[in-house]
Amino acid sequence: MKHSDSHTIQLPLGFRFSAGVAGIKASGRADVALAEASPGTTAAAAFTKNRVVAAPVTVGREFLAQTRGQVRALVVNSGNANCATGPAGLRNARRVSSQAARLLKVRTEAVLPSSTGIIGVPLPVEKLLRKLPALVAARASTRRAVAQFAEAIMTTDTKPKLASACVRSPSGRVNLLGIAKGSGMIHPQLATMLVFLFSDLAARPRQLRRLLRSVVDQTFHSISVDGDTSTNDTVLLLASGRSGIRLDNPGVEPQFTRALREVCWSLSEQIIGDAEGVHHRVRLRIEQARSGKEAIEIAQAIAHSLLVKTAWAGADPNWGRILAAIGAAKRSIDSRRIDILIGNQLVCHRGMHHGFDSRRAHAEMRKPSYEIRVKLGRGRATTVFLTTDLSVDYVRLNAQYST
Amino acid sequence: MKHSDSHTIQLPLGFRFSAGVAGIKASGRADVALAEASPGTTAAAAFTKNRVVAAPVTVGREFLAQTRGQVRALVVNSGNANCATGPAGLRNARRVSSQAARLLKVRTEAVLPSSTGIIGVPLPVEKLLRKLPALVAARASTRRAVAQFAEAIMTTDTKPKLASACVRSPSGRVNLLGIAKGSGMIHPQLATMLVFLFSDLAARPRQLRRLLRSVVDQTFHSISVDGDTSTNDTVLLLASGRSGIRLDNPGVEPQFTRALREVCWSLSEQIIGDAEGVHHRVRLRIEQARSGKEAIEIAQAIAHSLLVKTAWAGADPNWGRILAAIGAAKRSIDSRRIDILIGNQLVCHRGMHHGFDSRRAHAEMRKPSYEIRVKLGRGRATTVFLTTDLSVDYVRLNAQYST
Repeated sequence: MKHSDSHTIQLPLGFRFSAGVAGIKASGRADVALAEASPGTTAAAAFTKNRVVAAPVTVGREFLAQTRGQVRALVVNSGNANCATGPAGLRNARRVSSQAARLLKVRTEAVLPSSTGIIGVPLPVEKLLRKLPALVAARASTRRAVAQFAEAIMTTDTKPKLASACVRSPSGRVNLLGIAKGSGMIHPQLATMLVFLFSDLAARPRQLRRLLRSVVDQTFHSISVDGDTSTNDTVLLLASGRSGIRLDNPGVEPQFTRALREVCWSLSEQIIGDAEGVHHRVRLRIEQARSGKEAIEIAQAIAHSLLVKTAWAGADPNWGRILAAIGAAKRSIDSRRIDILIGNQLVCHRGMHHGFDSRRAHAEMRKPSYEIRVKLGRGRATTVFLTTDLSVDYVRLNAQYST
Repeated sequence: MKHSDSHTIQLPLGFRFSAGVAGIKASGRADVALAEASPGTTAAAAFTKNRVVAAPVTVGREFLAQTRGQVRALVVNSGNANCATGPAGLRNARRVSSQAARLLKVRTEAVLPSSTGIIGVPLPVEKLLRKLPALVAARASTRRAVAQFAEAIMTTDTKPKLASACVRSPSGRVNLLGIAKGSGMIHPQLATMLVFLFSDLAARPRQLRRLLRSVVDQTFHSISVDGDTSTNDTVLLLASGRSGIRLDNPGVEPQFTRALREVCWSLSEQIIGDAEGVHHRVRLRIEQARSGKEAIEIAQAIAHSLLVKTAWAGADPNWGRILAAIGAAKRSIDSRRIDILIGNQLVCHRGMHHGFDSRRAHAEMRKPSYEIRVKLGRGRATTVFLTTDLSVDYVRLNAQYST
C-alpha cells in the first residue's frame, strides 16, 4: 500500500482525471489538472491555518459552505499561487470554476479551484481558461490520467506523490487514492502542500469532516521541514459513493480510518522524503506525553529549533539543545523526568548526561534517516513526527535571489 | 551614552568588580567574575522563560525570594552553564554562593551565582572555589576592573558589551552601568544572554521589578538571532542607593526609566551586532499594531521564519514570505491592510504587489544593516525589533560536530 507509483494504485470508482500545459510555468511543463467527480460526491477539507490565504482557499471555503460539502470537480494549477492578488485574484479563481462548471454542466460552486506556485503575481487566468476544454475532453478514469494529474500539480517536487489503499468488507471493497505535492516551503516564493484524497466510499460530508480531522493531526500536521505555513495548504477528501459501501456499514469505519491514515502517512513521508536541500530525515518519537496534542507541540518545538536542526546537519549528538527546545515549549515540563535516545542509545537520562558512546551516536546521525526518541515521563500519549535537518544547502536554495 | 567602552563608562557608586582565570575554559582565558555590592543594595531580575533552567537560575530565584530582593554579590562563570546537571548542579551553585559569602562576610542568599557555557557537563566547582579568595582580594571600583568583569563573562562573544548612562536631577546624579554577554545561542552547546545592570539609585525591590518589566519587552525581548531561548538567560538590575537619590524624588523616575531603556537598547544592539555567522542585521519596525504586545508577536513571527531569514541572506526582496509569516502568527490579521517597505521603498501595498524597483530593493538589502517596515493598519502601537539573516555561515558554525 505504501509509496505507490501510478502502476500499482487502486483507482476509486467515480472519478476522471486529466492534465495539460497551460503555459503558466516558464519551464513549459504540465501546470494544470482536472479531476471530475460523479454526481453525489461528498467532500471535506482542511485548509491552511495561515491568516493570509490565497484566493482559491477563500473561494473553496465559500463554495463548500454553499454546497454543504458537495463537489463535482477540482481545477488545480501549479506555477502561480494566486495569493496576495487582491480582488482580481478572487475574480480569477471564480472565473476558473465557472468556466469549468459550464463545460462539465455542473454548478459553479461544485468546482473547487486550487493553486500553488509564486505569490504576489497575478494569475494568468486566460491561459488557464483556454486550456479547460481540452482538459474536459481528455478526462479519463485511467492510471495514466492519474499519473498526469500528479505530475501537473508539482512545483519544486522532484517526483509525483501517490498512495492508495483498498478496504475489504463483507459487502465489497472501497478504494482510496491520495495525490499530493509539496517539498517544504522551500523554493523562493513557491509554497504549499496540496493533498487530494479520492474515495468511492459513501459518506455524508459531516462524517468525512470527522474522519479527516481525526487523521490530519497525526499525519500532515506531524511533518515539518521549516515550520513555515503556506498560504495555500489544502487537504481535500472526496467520496463518490460509487463502491456502494457506506461508512455506516458494519466494520467499515475503523478499516477506512486506518486506510486513510496509512495513505496520509505515506504521502507525508513522501513529502519529507522529497524536501530539497535536506540531508537527514529525523523521525521524532515523543513518548509519555499527557496528551496527543502535547506530544505534537513538543515535537514541533524540537523540529522548529534552529539550533537542534543545525546540530542534526552536523550529526552532532547534542541532546542539550533538544532539552532546551522542549523547555522553550510552553508546558510545565519537568526536565528531570526526560530521557532522550538517539537510535537505540540512551544519551540523556532524567535530564542529565548519560554516559554514552558518542562515536556510535555520531555514526547513527550520519545516516540519511534515523530516529530520536524523547520520553517525557508525564503520561501515556505517543506521537511520531517527521522532520529534517537544516543544512547549508537548504539555506543556499532559499537564499537565491529570485526577483 | 551608547556603545560605551570601558574608558568612557560612568562608574556607579557602591560596587566593586574583579575577574580571573579559574581554568574552566580550555582556552585559558578569564572565566570567572565577581561583583560586590554595598550593604542595602536592592535587586530585581528577569530570568529565562525556558522550562528547562540551569541550576544557578533555580538558586538565584530562591535566593531573591528569601532575601526579598537584597543582593550583596554576584559570582559569574563562563565556560560551563551548570545546566542539565541534576542535584549536583544545584549543590555546586550553592557552594559557590556560600564560599563567596563567607569570604565577603555576607549571608549566602545575598550572593547570586550565574553561569554560561556548555550544557550537560558537571561544573568544575573546585576550580571556581579555589579562585574566589583572589577575586575577593582584587575587587575594585575601577574602569579596569569593570572591563575585566565584562571580558570574563564572554563565551563566543568577540567583544565585551558595555553601556552606561547618567541621570542628572536637582539633588545630584545617578549612574547606571550595564554589562552583557551573548551572541545568539550560536555556538555548539554554548548559550545564553547575561545582562547585569548596576546603579547607585535608591529604590525598593518592587520598584526595580516594575522598572525592569517595563523596559525588558522593548529591548531584550525585541532581539532575536535564532529564536532559541537559552536555559540560563538572566537580566539583573541592582541599585546600591549610594547616590543618595531616590526613585521617588521628583522627576527621577521618568529620567531613570529612559536611561535604563537606552542602556538596555544599546546592549541589545551590541548583542545583535556580535551575532556570529550573520551577514545582515535587520531592524524590523512594526507599525499600526493594536498593542505593543501584538507588534512584538508579529515581529517575532517574521524574525523566526526560516523562509524570511534565508531570503534576507540572499538580499531577496521577497515580501510574500513576510506576508505569509505575518499570517502564520495567531492574530486576526487582514492582509488587505498590510503595507511593507524595504528601506524607504514601498514593495507591498494593501497586501498586494506594489510596482517597485527591485534592483534598488536588492541593493538596500545587500547593506550590512537596513530597515524593513510593516504597517498593519490595525491600530497605533509601534515596536522596533532587531534580528538577523540566516546565512550559510550560521549553519556551518552551528553544525560543527562538537562532542
